Amino acid sequence: MRRTMNDTHDHGNCAVAATAEIIATKWTPLIVHDLSEGPRRFMKLEKACPGISPRTLSERLDMLERQGVLVRRSYPESPPRVEYELTEKGRALLPIIREMRKFGRSWMIDAPAKGRRASAAH
Amino acid sequence: MRRTMNDTHDHGNCAVAATAEIIATKWTPLIVHDLSEGPRRFMKLEKACPGISPRTLSERLDMLERQGVLVRRSYPESPPRVEYELTEKGRALLPIIREMRKFGRSWMIDAPAKGRRASAAH
Repeated sequence: MRRTMNDTHDHGNCAVAATAEIIATKWTPLIVHDLSEGPRRFMKLEKACPGISPRTLSERLDMLERQGVLVRRSYPESPPRVEYELTEKGRALLPIIREMRKFGRSWMIDAPAKGRRASAAH
Repeated sequence: MRRTMNDTHDHGNCAVAATAEIIATKWTPLIVHDLSEGPRRFMKLEKACPGISPRTLSERLDMLERQGVLVRRSYPESPPRVEYELTEKGRALLPIIREMRKFGRSWMIDAPAKGRRASAAH
């Protein structure tokens, strides 16, 4: 079948899908949001994601490291200290997080009733 | 334990988490992105999400309808026509999708090598 979709849209769709691979998984926006304030240790990140299991947090951190979103730094102290820090690519995700926060404040937290307003006019 | 986290950050975290419930699930950004161009039928949305199963697409559409992000309109034709359309709340998600597209273009598609550049300077 010949592709008839608009190319620009198609390309845009592809870019959205690629970003979704990183950011549209449970907990990831919260981890990136917490790291936006500076390097964090594992336990601090755990507190930023109430309910996450240590195993899931490890998996997410591994994925984000593989994707080049964060770096893991270990300091040879006793006990050893490990911190996670956003890279330039990771910081480039922050405008997405900012828009998520704005949406959350306007539509989910401060004004939950708004969501009930069926608004699409005909 | 007394909460010592910064309140503003805490509130922001909560807003990000609430938005993540809607947008940080597989396929949802693609569905919202496709609906940003106008009302869509089920089959058209299926094409916008290559690899999605009809069952998963139904589940996502139900969730987005419950969340007030889209409305489902049926027209009494033969065969009946059903279309999905973003609400005002749904359109309020579009700045997030736009930032996701920008990130995807800069870091995932046009310049994948950038991701390899470890950049956080000390």
